[in-house]
Amino acid sequence: MPGTLILIRHGQSLWNKDDRFCGWVDIKLSETGREQARHSAKLILESGYVQPDICFTSRLSRAIESANIILEEMNCQYIDEVKSWRLNERHYGKLQGEPKSHILELYGKEKYQFWRRAFTGCPPAVDPGDKYYCIDDRRYAKVAKDDLPRAESLQMVSKRLLPFYNKHVVPHLEAGETVLMVTHGSVVRALVKHLYAIDDDAISSVNIPNGIPMVIKFNSAMSPETDHFEFLDPERARIEAEKVARQGFEKST
Amino acid sequence: MPGTLILIRHGQSLWNKDDRFCGWVDIKLSETGREQARHSAKLILESGYVQPDICFTSRLSRAIESANIILEEMNCQYIDEVKSWRLNERHYGKLQGEPKSHILELYGKEKYQFWRRAFTGCPPAVDPGDKYYCIDDRRYAKVAKDDLPRAESLQMVSKRLLPFYNKHVVPHLEAGETVLMVTHGSVVRALVKHLYAIDDDAISSVNIPNGIPMVIKFNSAMSPETDHFEFLDPERARIEAEKVARQGFEKST
Repeated sequence: MPGTLILIRHGQSLWNKDDRFCGWVDIKLSETGREQARHSAKLILESGYVQPDICFTSRLSRAIESANIILEEMNCQYIDEVKSWRLNERHYGKLQGEPKSHILELYGKEKYQFWRRAFTGCPPAVDPGDKYYCIDDRRYAKVAKDDLPRAESLQMVSKRLLPFYNKHVVPHLEAGETVLMVTHGSVVRALVKHLYAIDDDAISSVNIPNGIPMVIKFNSAMSPETDHFEFLDPERARIEAEKVARQGFEKST
Repeated sequence: MPGTLILIRHGQSLWNKDDRFCGWVDIKLSETGREQARHSAKLILESGYVQPDICFTSRLSRAIESANIILEEMNCQYIDEVKSWRLNERHYGKLQGEPKSHILELYGKEKYQFWRRAFTGCPPAVDPGDKYYCIDDRRYAKVAKDDLPRAESLQMVSKRLLPFYNKHVVPHLEAGETVLMVTHGSVVRALVKHLYAIDDDAISSVNIPNGIPMVIKFNSAMSPETDHFEFLDPERARIEAEKVARQGFEKST
């Protein structure tokens, strides 16, 4: 029997809280973020999918810390935990560190939404001298320099994510295992776009809440059993996703 | 230049606190244990060996949780973390779960110390029906059943540890990396016995305190640079190691 993918965006980070573009900047969880991670473990346990076999996460602390909290709450810290930069948040280029409301004000709604949500929207790239360049960080020391982005669209995230997903995650699902993936908003968007064949336009209105899991069961063709994704706590997910959609607008309008 | 091994026994577990034989039973850290893990990160940072490249730990929560705390305190949660049952504590067989003072009383000092500290001292093996059999636990589902012990001497720990150490840890040291290994008392004893060629008799008087790191620098022959091991906080390590040596005796004599 094919396996199950539990897919979660990390808990709220300190910059999520402040509505700042985070991307590859290594910002820690807020207290709310830690609480969200604990709550997501509770939701998974209540849903009956109690025992992941392996955990995948990014090289960024907010995802790793969320994963560790979830594994601890589920009493399965002992499973393998695989970290990869290919599960990192989208690199937001020069927008990293900027308040969202500031970028909206500076560039206008159309450009702002293009960079945030359009499939091909790629913010201006960071340069080596920039404060949040991130690429020289030792956490990427073993990655070929040319592979590392200086800004990404969702499409570019897809291109670096899917080869990893197909090579390292799918075999576990094919083997009938339960895979826990604790990652970032753009990675979740790129993956559900792929799994549910969401088109380039429709994906722009998909927003992912922090710390609310979705549980995706696969059929023997290794496609999701249902034709659309659903979060474990749909009502709360809807409210939180709407808050994500409104980011930047509430302070500046 | 050859690398550096930072070797640590996990922080105090709830059963360390109660002086009970723990072995493969998955007992969590006490609050003191968490504090010791935080303190060991501080000792490593103060010593100047600030950036591990990879972390090895066991399949038991007290080691994994200690490792996670240390990585968080050192701001390097992003490094790879490899877990293996070959870094598990010694399997204490039928002694698992028993208060040390109770075993001392029941079997006498000679037998008690033979089981605890002699290189070849192997406690009675657990049977499948026993409360703390542990072998059927899903965390070992991918290990060949015949490889898993039902009780171990320190010599048996050595035999399952050293092939893993040579195959998976040494290449990182040869590559000049800093390896963080967060593991258990018997694993630390088996490893220092190997690295410092401590003989079978002498190893019986070596006791390992919780949460005090040793930093082992290697020469080009891949031997430790010094002829004896030393903890980062030698005075506190001496006091804590003496407490470990006295376990079981204080309550029953």
